Amino acid sequence: LAATLEWMQRIAIDMDEVMADTIQYCLDLYNKQFDRAVTVDHLHGRNLLSAIETAHRQHVRSYFESEEFFANIHVMEGSQDTVRDLMTTYDVFVVSAAMDVPRSFSAKFEWLRQHFPFIPTSHIVFCGDKSIVAADYLIDDNVRNLATFGGEGIIFTSHHNIEETRFRRVNNWDDVRAMFLT
Amino acid sequence: LAATLEWMQRIAIDMDEVMADTIQYCLDLYNKQFDRAVTVDHLHGRNLLSAIETAHRQHVRSYFESEEFFANIHVMEGSQDTVRDLMTTYDVFVVSAAMDVPRSFSAKFEWLRQHFPFIPTSHIVFCGDKSIVAADYLIDDNVRNLATFGGEGIIFTSHHNIEETRFRRVNNWDDVRAMFLT
Repeated sequence: LAATLEWMQRIAIDMDEVMADTIQYCLDLYNKQFDRAVTVDHLHGRNLLSAIETAHRQHVRSYFESEEFFANIHVMEGSQDTVRDLMTTYDVFVVSAAMDVPRSFSAKFEWLRQHFPFIPTSHIVFCGDKSIVAADYLIDDNVRNLATFGGEGIIFTSHHNIEETRFRRVNNWDDVRAMFLT
Repeated sequence: LAATLEWMQRIAIDMDEVMADTIQYCLDLYNKQFDRAVTVDHLHGRNLLSAIETAHRQHVRSYFESEEFFANIHVMEGSQDTVRDLMTTYDVFVVSAAMDVPRSFSAKFEWLRQHFPFIPTSHIVFCGDKSIVAADYLIDDNVRNLATFGGEGIIFTSHHNIEETRFRRVNNWDDVRAMFLT
């Protein structure tokens, strides 16, 4: 197995906004709490906090301080099947910038074990600066992460990155499949 | 700063048995619980579990399932000053194989914030397989980690690795200082 992995290309995959539909869940909570109807389309090019009313921002920030928040985020459509299939041809790591929200470690780990049990725990990474990641590709929605990564960054479309043109782009998991498995 | 970091060599440093005197604290607990006087010298070339009485092994395993255990481990002698000084010349990351003990995430993070507050959280990594680490050097006591690392592995002496000859060796933090800062 070790000998095989040495010759496999390695894909690192971000968690929030790529495997996990974090913003949608955040909007669900926000709309419920404040009786609003904000959609991802409303966010076009902005981050969530700048798109909502100032008085509400602290409430939304507090979502990210709850372990329960991370436990309940939905899986991004198509991610489970495609990650499973990528693993037959690539050495796949999940790489999450969890250091921003230290309370999220356990909940993120449990979420991965629940929704992606076929990814071995040896292939889960919680980090801050993703320049530490040794991989051929990084699929990430965050331009900051892609810019410092040493391999090829692939941008996963999210409301906040739609203007970005420096990276090859995937809009969804079907696009990931088409890029890496066809 | 970013431009400077690009030209700095990067050192990744393991946590348990390198920055944290994990085995010594484990022995302290064990000796107290079972009224024994096992020292690190008794372990010569063996791991802790194989060196103690069979009937006690499950108790010692359980130490690692407690958050409190990780919170109370002592800092390895000389590590704080040397890491701080390395950071003036190198891009330093802490890389811990925390995925083996998922309950340890928060406690390990808090321990680092308490004892190494000068290491930014962006430079803390919790992973499983350390082949994911992109760095020039990895200082680690674990041969398994050093063997798959892509840069130069530097072995930090621990009771279980004293027979190993494949890597440049440091016996303590004075040796680390001598190797990287003189």
